[in-house]
Amino acid sequence: MSVKPSGENAVLQKIERAVRMQPIGANRSLKLSIGDDAALLHLRSKNEEVLTCDWFLEGTHFLPDKHSPDSIGWKCLARAVSDIAAMGGRPKCFLLSLALPAACTGTWLDKFLGGLRRASRKLDCPLAGGDTTKRDEILINITVVGEVAAGEAVLRSGARTGDFVYVSGMLGEAEVGLLAVSATKGRIDSKSASLKKHLYPIPRLKLGQWLAKKRIASAMMDLSDGLSSDLPRLCAASGVGARIFDAQLPLPNLHGGSANGRVDALQLALHGGDDYELLFTVSREKAKKLPKSFRGVLLTRIGEITAARKIVLIDERGQEASLVAGGWDSFRI
Amino acid sequence: MSVKPSGENAVLQKIERAVRMQPIGANRSLKLSIGDDAALLHLRSKNEEVLTCDWFLEGTHFLPDKHSPDSIGWKCLARAVSDIAAMGGRPKCFLLSLALPAACTGTWLDKFLGGLRRASRKLDCPLAGGDTTKRDEILINITVVGEVAAGEAVLRSGARTGDFVYVSGMLGEAEVGLLAVSATKGRIDSKSASLKKHLYPIPRLKLGQWLAKKRIASAMMDLSDGLSSDLPRLCAASGVGARIFDAQLPLPNLHGGSANGRVDALQLALHGGDDYELLFTVSREKAKKLPKSFRGVLLTRIGEITAARKIVLIDERGQEASLVAGGWDSFRI
Repeated sequence: MSVKPSGENAVLQKIERAVRMQPIGANRSLKLSIGDDAALLHLRSKNEEVLTCDWFLEGTHFLPDKHSPDSIGWKCLARAVSDIAAMGGRPKCFLLSLALPAACTGTWLDKFLGGLRRASRKLDCPLAGGDTTKRDEILINITVVGEVAAGEAVLRSGARTGDFVYVSGMLGEAEVGLLAVSATKGRIDSKSASLKKHLYPIPRLKLGQWLAKKRIASAMMDLSDGLSSDLPRLCAASGVGARIFDAQLPLPNLHGGSANGRVDALQLALHGGDDYELLFTVSREKAKKLPKSFRGVLLTRIGEITAARKIVLIDERGQEASLVAGGWDSFRI
Repeated sequence: MSVKPSGENAVLQKIERAVRMQPIGANRSLKLSIGDDAALLHLRSKNEEVLTCDWFLEGTHFLPDKHSPDSIGWKCLARAVSDIAAMGGRPKCFLLSLALPAACTGTWLDKFLGGLRRASRKLDCPLAGGDTTKRDEILINITVVGEVAAGEAVLRSGARTGDFVYVSGMLGEAEVGLLAVSATKGRIDSKSASLKKHLYPIPRLKLGQWLAKKRIASAMMDLSDGLSSDLPRLCAASGVGARIFDAQLPLPNLHGGSANGRVDALQLALHGGDDYELLFTVSREKAKKLPKSFRGVLLTRIGEITAARKIVLIDERGQEASLVAGGWDSFRI
């Protein structure tokens, strides 16, 4: 009896074919890919391994009637790889856990794998293995294995009083894209920058690696839940607080815009999730040499680290207020 | 502002506390655990890394009204570690992706973490990181990172014509346990061997490592979906077939038993899933030295590898029949 390409084997074969089309490139660590009980990877011992996993769930993180399978395929990998960027690491391979309705194993799966394969090539992060099962909703979990030279990883816990706080790129743009998607009937094409950022985010790998390698960043994380949710996490890990200046935040472009345009943009920059930009701190000494941008990505100083363990927001008139987390927290009531 | 222990942070803190209670033991590869963007792990370069991930989903893999949170916590890790055993590897750490209803973040989560922690200690596999989110159903995904000496991993693809086919332990026992659970109202205690095997499986780590280290097994995999589903996968990977003898299968004890007891036990042994026993092949030369059991686990020769690429079942009267996959395949209609 040969194994017939039906059921789970058929889904696996489709995934395997999509992977085989992918050139492994310079990424030669992978010794054994899907098709066995587990994958085999060989890393050099001077490096440490970076491990992360991320949920990407129908209804919670994406809507199948709003988001194309191609963008879901791209984004599920890109956002997981962003955690590797946040440590200053290089991705080596990923595992895909995929639960699908039977109705999605045809065209939907093909298009999903198309977006996933493009992200995999772009990020030089081949598929190493995974698990599939049938389910009434689309559930995705991605594990990414990366590497970083031993001792070079940038943690959340390294921020010191007096360090400046920086972000890459623009804040709140992905949320602008999400609002546009929500306001549109059916699926929407990715023409604008904010839509591209919402549908096809690009993790800041090169920037993270440079900040780590040159030992510029004292602490770093990626912005996935929004500045007001993520900055407190970095500060808590470092045992410090921060002062953030409204006027310095790189605000999203709201186009047209209303009388409240500036206020709205500020709220989006503070609380909007899914940007996958890097939030990092730099000592005053090293900050002098930091360029305004890195490979076309804006680097903006938005505040400073304080000994007082609170997050303070300073508006354009110099008024202080507490920054209250308003970003993504699925367990918040 | 300090990070308040509410929402996602509270769930993470609870998980972190459960982890901190765990002695790391001899497993000193883990450099950075949960609380940052990613975990850091250091493996020796003479070893290859073994990577695997596994879904464990409410309704698909377990039933919250039938299975205790303690057993769910144990089993989700044990079954994922079984894939490491199947390669001949040692587990090093795992990642936990957990999606939970808000109502499960209290007692249910505590008990789940209790079972998970016990499995983590028993298997010397500490938690390295993960992801949590709120969801209306309990969704679990486990990634396990293991290691194996370079070149020692036992793949599915090494079986050669003439090799004998072996299994560890008893087949179909976990399915007997599942039937008992299904037939009982509410949750059931794990008194019998079959219930223990269904609720608290123990991956065959030491056996897998021994078969790999001594280069005894030519091919190996773990039995998760049932012999009739898994053996064809090993044979397909090796480009061979197999003859399996009914009379040699280590059948489950059905207790009491009916007139059809022997037939039922045979069906359970062939098609029952979730056993997490090892299926492996051994050359005739090496088979001569294979003991009858290893550390109290029965090793049973159940058949032989053939050049003809089909799986043949031979009954007690010598009659041949094709073995049709009847095990677990969530996509089969």
